[in-house]
Amino acid sequence: MEMRMAELSRRSGLSVPTIKYYLREGLLQPGRRTSVNQARYDDAHLERLRLIRALVKVAGLPLDKVREVVQAVSIESSVLDAMGVTQDALVGDVGAVPGEDAALQLLSELVTARGWRCQEGSPAHAAAVQAIAELQAEDLTLLLDRLDEYADAADAVGRIDVRAVAEAENLETMIRGVVLGSVLRRPLLDSLVLLAQQHYANQLNQKIETTRHDTPTRQARA
Amino acid sequence: MEMRMAELSRRSGLSVPTIKYYLREGLLQPGRRTSVNQARYDDAHLERLRLIRALVKVAGLPLDKVREVVQAVSIESSVLDAMGVTQDALVGDVGAVPGEDAALQLLSELVTARGWRCQEGSPAHAAAVQAIAELQAEDLTLLLDRLDEYADAADAVGRIDVRAVAEAENLETMIRGVVLGSVLRRPLLDSLVLLAQQHYANQLNQKIETTRHDTPTRQARA
Repeated sequence: MEMRMAELSRRSGLSVPTIKYYLREGLLQPGRRTSVNQARYDDAHLERLRLIRALVKVAGLPLDKVREVVQAVSIESSVLDAMGVTQDALVGDVGAVPGEDAALQLLSELVTARGWRCQEGSPAHAAAVQAIAELQAEDLTLLLDRLDEYADAADAVGRIDVRAVAEAENLETMIRGVVLGSVLRRPLLDSLVLLAQQHYANQLNQKIETTRHDTPTRQARA
Repeated sequence: MEMRMAELSRRSGLSVPTIKYYLREGLLQPGRRTSVNQARYDDAHLERLRLIRALVKVAGLPLDKVREVVQAVSIESSVLDAMGVTQDALVGDVGAVPGEDAALQLLSELVTARGWRCQEGSPAHAAAVQAIAELQAEDLTLLLDRLDEYADAADAVGRIDVRAVAEAENLETMIRGVVLGSVLRRPLLDSLVLLAQQHYANQLNQKIETTRHDTPTRQARA
């Protein structure tokens, strides 16, 4: 179904100046020109605008990263490629970190033990090395001792992510799912973890309170 | 053990001007003055600097948020309070979102079904509503259908987080664990999920490749 700029704006929830800006920047493909200053747009334009909106407003990516992801959706034909480009854009550049060797060693052991086949040179891999190095630098053994439990949870999430997009009807929907899924699922998981933390902290607090009431001798001594 | 500014700088990995800046801003407590322009610092200063460093460099928090968290560690005496302040600082302000009612409804059902006791008015709760509303706005049913599976993973992570800090020897270590854990565990889980995604995308890709080779008739038809 073809539509004018005004309807494209209404249905995408983006202002006309914003859409014109994306057109000038080459992020949105041109419409079908019907006169010198009129053009018609279709569902493909609407879908592209939804994708750009999610990348800009939800993921907060800079315009050159948005361009990379949009080009990947337009050109790449495999889920693996689209996921690679999206991950790279989301992670950004990871510099060298102090204590990298020990962290790399720990991550390699974990990856080997789990049989994960992942890209060693990828920004995601570098980000994992950096995260472990930071925990080691802070000497946070409380968390490092649980690395394997966290990897279990991460394995579950990665599996759900990929299964979700694998059920898409065609490759285009699948790739759009990978891109939007990567961007929108992160804040969802982050916030659900915080709610679960509140729940277990509440439980812990109640346990401490109960212990206090149960042991009047300790309280009297204090 | 007391030390001079030069050693505090060496052991914290922060430059002398940076430490002096934190002193002026009141984030770091003053040292024991030994002459007009000399002071001595101890392990408490080192620990505070480590915390500030993690909040500024790892979490990327603005200075006023760092101040809030540092004050919570200094004053609050319960894990629950320290966790609340840290979560609020990490999440930041969440504005109203379109389609909030439907998302709030979905989240309430999820929270009730799981028996999670969490704070309805907290920024973390608002962030979860926002994340679900974004998925609904993008009509990402592929992911929304798996909300409960993601909540399972989130429950596991939140439980590990709280158990990790609950094993700390004293309340001060526990609170420091909550703060640093919240900040440093997030990039760890994020990057491990990306590696798991790579693994399962690799598997999926291989399956697709195999299917293509197994069905030459479909390939011939294309």
